[in-house]
Amino acid sequence: MNSFSYRAWLQPAGDANSVAEHSLKTGYFAEEECARGLRMYKKEDLQVSFSLNNALPPEGFEIKCDPDGVKIEGGCESGLLYGVYALLSRIGRGEKIEPVKQKPAVSMRVLNHWDNGDGSVERGYSGNSLFWRDGKIGYDLPRLRDYARLLASVGINQISVNNVNVRRLTAQLLTDDGLNDLVKVAEVFRPFGIRLIIAVHFDSPVWLGGLETSDPVRDDVAAFWKEAAARVYKRIPDLAGFLVKADSEFQSGPNSFGHTQDIGANVIGKALKPHGGTLYWRCFIYNCMQDWRDTVTDRPKAAYDTFFPIDGKFDDNIILQVKHGPSDFQVREPNSPLLGALKHTREALEFQISQEYTGQQKDMYAWAVQWEEILDTPFNESRLTRDLIGREVEAIVAVANTGDDVNWCGHLLAQANLYAFGRMAWAPAITAKTVTEEWVALTFGHSSEAGRDSLCAEITRMLLESRHVYEKYNAPLGICWMVYVHHHYGPSPDGYEYTPWGTYHRADTKAIGVDRTRKGTGYTAQYQPYMRDLYESLETCPQEVLLYFHRLAYDFRLKDGRTLIQYIYDTHFEGVEGVEGFIATWESLKSGLPAEAYESVRERLEMQLANAKEWRDVINSYFYRKSGIADEKGRTIYV
Amino acid sequence: MNSFSYRAWLQPAGDANSVAEHSLKTGYFAEEECARGLRMYKKEDLQVSFSLNNALPPEGFEIKCDPDGVKIEGGCESGLLYGVYALLSRIGRGEKIEPVKQKPAVSMRVLNHWDNGDGSVERGYSGNSLFWRDGKIGYDLPRLRDYARLLASVGINQISVNNVNVRRLTAQLLTDDGLNDLVKVAEVFRPFGIRLIIAVHFDSPVWLGGLETSDPVRDDVAAFWKEAAARVYKRIPDLAGFLVKADSEFQSGPNSFGHTQDIGANVIGKALKPHGGTLYWRCFIYNCMQDWRDTVTDRPKAAYDTFFPIDGKFDDNIILQVKHGPSDFQVREPNSPLLGALKHTREALEFQISQEYTGQQKDMYAWAVQWEEILDTPFNESRLTRDLIGREVEAIVAVANTGDDVNWCGHLLAQANLYAFGRMAWAPAITAKTVTEEWVALTFGHSSEAGRDSLCAEITRMLLESRHVYEKYNAPLGICWMVYVHHHYGPSPDGYEYTPWGTYHRADTKAIGVDRTRKGTGYTAQYQPYMRDLYESLETCPQEVLLYFHRLAYDFRLKDGRTLIQYIYDTHFEGVEGVEGFIATWESLKSGLPAEAYESVRERLEMQLANAKEWRDVINSYFYRKSGIADEKGRTIYV
Repeated sequence: MNSFSYRAWLQPAGDANSVAEHSLKTGYFAEEECARGLRMYKKEDLQVSFSLNNALPPEGFEIKCDPDGVKIEGGCESGLLYGVYALLSRIGRGEKIEPVKQKPAVSMRVLNHWDNGDGSVERGYSGNSLFWRDGKIGYDLPRLRDYARLLASVGINQISVNNVNVRRLTAQLLTDDGLNDLVKVAEVFRPFGIRLIIAVHFDSPVWLGGLETSDPVRDDVAAFWKEAAARVYKRIPDLAGFLVKADSEFQSGPNSFGHTQDIGANVIGKALKPHGGTLYWRCFIYNCMQDWRDTVTDRPKAAYDTFFPIDGKFDDNIILQVKHGPSDFQVREPNSPLLGALKHTREALEFQISQEYTGQQKDMYAWAVQWEEILDTPFNESRLTRDLIGREVEAIVAVANTGDDVNWCGHLLAQANLYAFGRMAWAPAITAKTVTEEWVALTFGHSSEAGRDSLCAEITRMLLESRHVYEKYNAPLGICWMVYVHHHYGPSPDGYEYTPWGTYHRADTKAIGVDRTRKGTGYTAQYQPYMRDLYESLETCPQEVLLYFHRLAYDFRLKDGRTLIQYIYDTHFEGVEGVEGFIATWESLKSGLPAEAYESVRERLEMQLANAKEWRDVINSYFYRKSGIADEKGRTIYV
Repeated sequence: MNSFSYRAWLQPAGDANSVAEHSLKTGYFAEEECARGLRMYKKEDLQVSFSLNNALPPEGFEIKCDPDGVKIEGGCESGLLYGVYALLSRIGRGEKIEPVKQKPAVSMRVLNHWDNGDGSVERGYSGNSLFWRDGKIGYDLPRLRDYARLLASVGINQISVNNVNVRRLTAQLLTDDGLNDLVKVAEVFRPFGIRLIIAVHFDSPVWLGGLETSDPVRDDVAAFWKEAAARVYKRIPDLAGFLVKADSEFQSGPNSFGHTQDIGANVIGKALKPHGGTLYWRCFIYNCMQDWRDTVTDRPKAAYDTFFPIDGKFDDNIILQVKHGPSDFQVREPNSPLLGALKHTREALEFQISQEYTGQQKDMYAWAVQWEEILDTPFNESRLTRDLIGREVEAIVAVANTGDDVNWCGHLLAQANLYAFGRMAWAPAITAKTVTEEWVALTFGHSSEAGRDSLCAEITRMLLESRHVYEKYNAPLGICWMVYVHHHYGPSPDGYEYTPWGTYHRADTKAIGVDRTRKGTGYTAQYQPYMRDLYESLETCPQEVLLYFHRLAYDFRLKDGRTLIQYIYDTHFEGVEGVEGFIATWESLKSGLPAEAYESVRERLEMQLANAKEWRDVINSYFYRKSGIADEKGRTIYV
């Protein structure tokens, strides 16, 4: 377990674990981590001193440089630790050590694991769960310790340890039996400044408490939650809180009993409150049993329709967890209209690091680029989505992409996404380019002396291009959902068309898309006026989401004069060429790469090429068979 | 377990199990069954005598009537038993007892169970396995005894007890451990004249024998099969034989080692030969990893291409098991060109009773009607497919539709299919109408005195119509496969279109279908000249398979002057009306039906109505969106 890919961005190899006793003076865990890192970088000579500084924010740190060495000050022990990792990162990237003062943009930087008790991971593409096996949590504590270091090194400070779709096995975490093992997991993560979250099932009062109902207005239900919270906090006093997916995709919730979401959330929130716990309440609610014939109901409207009217009704230890887009982590969608709309309720922004719809860690896909686009999008005439962070948005959450594969993420280059999430949650202003450069330098910068810079530049370039290359060969212009139902990999243009999932493009011989303007479903009205008008008009609607908002004829002319259908054909051919380019680049880098890294990524790129060709040919054939319009350039489209 | 639905066609209720001791004189099991039946019908007074008659074929029987009573003669004990069931059937249907002499058309009337060791049933819609639970076979021997009676009463005399897709658990049937339980199952079925078949995995030499390969030309592989056969026959000397699905859908086979099918089959056949065992070798072989872009490969051609060139190369205890159609038990396909083509190889005709593609026992579907159509189809200018039976075709096989649901078949009316299969395998000349009337009279004839005849007539009519009603709302004119991949229920018109399964209709804005004539894939050339010419020409091709053989424009005119697209719209509206008619009929029969039967079928009919509407709307929308051609009658098609 000391392979290149296992070490991830904590490179290079070295006897990092044996920390010389004499160097540890302070009793701070941060010092131990520092000594470990310096040993890895063969910089044991560097003198580093540690002290707490109440003037700094709790997780903030300051690195001071003077002739005697480096001084790290932290607002609390976590601050010291982040200072250490910042220092080590500069050393690892070969940068000069310079004074720096930092604090995180938000105090909750959260990873959600969708791990099931049987060891499977929902939408996981990196092997089985790191946490669960055979109904028990914590089967491999040493590996969890390595995992904790990876997460802490990029600033993640909370993790949920079980799937939001809670099943019977993981529901047991609220019982004494379940807690016995969870306590050990908490002990592993605690020194790294990482607190646990438990995903709980809304029906726990029935499942575990033996009650007849989970109706949140009943006293016995409230009492159940109080007892459960007390039981948990007695064993894990620093638990961050609970996470709930309610009234969504066959999960029960307050709506099952005729109540609005706040009624359900507040009863659990009140149970957590005396213990300082936070309740994360997901906003991913929609009708997953829609009749496809129904053209009035429009799934993207659901979250706003559900939560906006009850803004302000949630207790102050409750955070509404909002997916960045109104659909479901698609390769391209607009931002959720809830972002910036809630004024009196605490909010978390939810990303997905796991590549459910974006290549499932077979295809290379740098989420950082998409996240940057999301954060760069305005939500009104004067503010960007990024500006919400640290103000309206108090937490940044993401669905993890990790599992028990040796390389953690299935695809070695998918480690960049885990890294980028942590860094961007800490510092949302960091660019995709910078964060990718950091990760590449840390990971590959030690592999080769000669040509190091160009090697790193090339890998960075590949990653930065990967999001757009993937988008090119996928469903065009924000149309979404042209994948196989259930497993979500590979092109199935009509796959969702007649299903109950609320995800329709309604393509016919002339046109494709759902009109979501005021003349259509009225979805645009959920946005603040500036964005509403932008999306409403064909003149101003950003091209990349054109088909998210508008139903357009295949011969509609885009700004560059091309028809819609010609754009679809062109981009799908270009997407495959992009992947071929990645392969050529990767092959050219072979000599500078560890063999393990080269081979494993090469293998994934071949899978991606096959996938890209499949997308190109299926999507092009589909549109040709629908429209009867030939490619102007006469390239091969299968009839 | 003595409910109406559990008794199936062995009605009415009664203390049938307590057979008076004094009535049993002969020692024949048939006499016991006779006494049991007579008691059920309250005809204990009827004098029946039994004797063997070597002049009759082994399973043949003769019923003679004289003033002293009824005399049943049988060619062997099974003949006596079939004589008893024939007698009881007449009594059960209220018919006069008349002299009759019968023998089965084929000596192998076989049911294949696709049951897995974990208790699941592949393509099963009637609960879990009757045979398997937790890796063990024979967990409920008393119920198996009831099952044996049901099967024997309609003449079934061989059953395979595990899925043709053999997995690790059921592969163990070839081991001493597995045989310990199988012996008990054989004991249950033996008195009923039913012999067991074991489905074996081609890789058993590796899985069980510890060999490095299953390559059939190796001596150690041949030795493995010899030993395995000897081991099995020592414990179950009357085992009918083995069943193999090789080189199909990810199962290994001789082709995996570069050999033709005969090379693999003969090595197993030779192992069975000394014991009198038969090897059933399935012909369901095709490329399930086809590239959808490949328009040359044509899946329906695969079985013929594989087996016709090696006709005559199989040992004489090997039977090639041929599915009735070249696709896969679709609602409409032509007959397999292998039927009638093999001249020097023994053949079995394979049906499916389980309603995989025909409503999954939620929708009512009388297979007998389709089987009659199949048997009525010529294979050359002078002979019908029916004429092959008892000559070229020596065995009739079907995939079972039974499970541990109380009513055996999920849908009460699906019991008619199990009944019809047995009867038609025994006497292929029996009409669908007759066999359905028999089943209805046996099952429902005891429920009501007044109105009995019209009750039975109405149920018979519903069943006889059900096949065409289902076909109307499904994929039109033999186009096949417009279902969801994997689970095969519900309409997904493009569901298979870009998959590797070789099942494409390639619909575009103008036309749909694959040209399988000499100008297309050349599939028609596999038929004998008379049928080839019939299918080849648009003038003579039977309308119901028009889109199986031809690619046609949506405005193609059918014989009645309607366009193809209008025919599609019309039939899909009619299909739903047909189901509504079934519901009205069923409701009108309520007073004459056992409450249990009425309610359970009513429930299924509601499911069917929802399904039929879904098919109607999805298929009509699909074709409208493809063609842009409106319904001439202006009915609702969702755009």
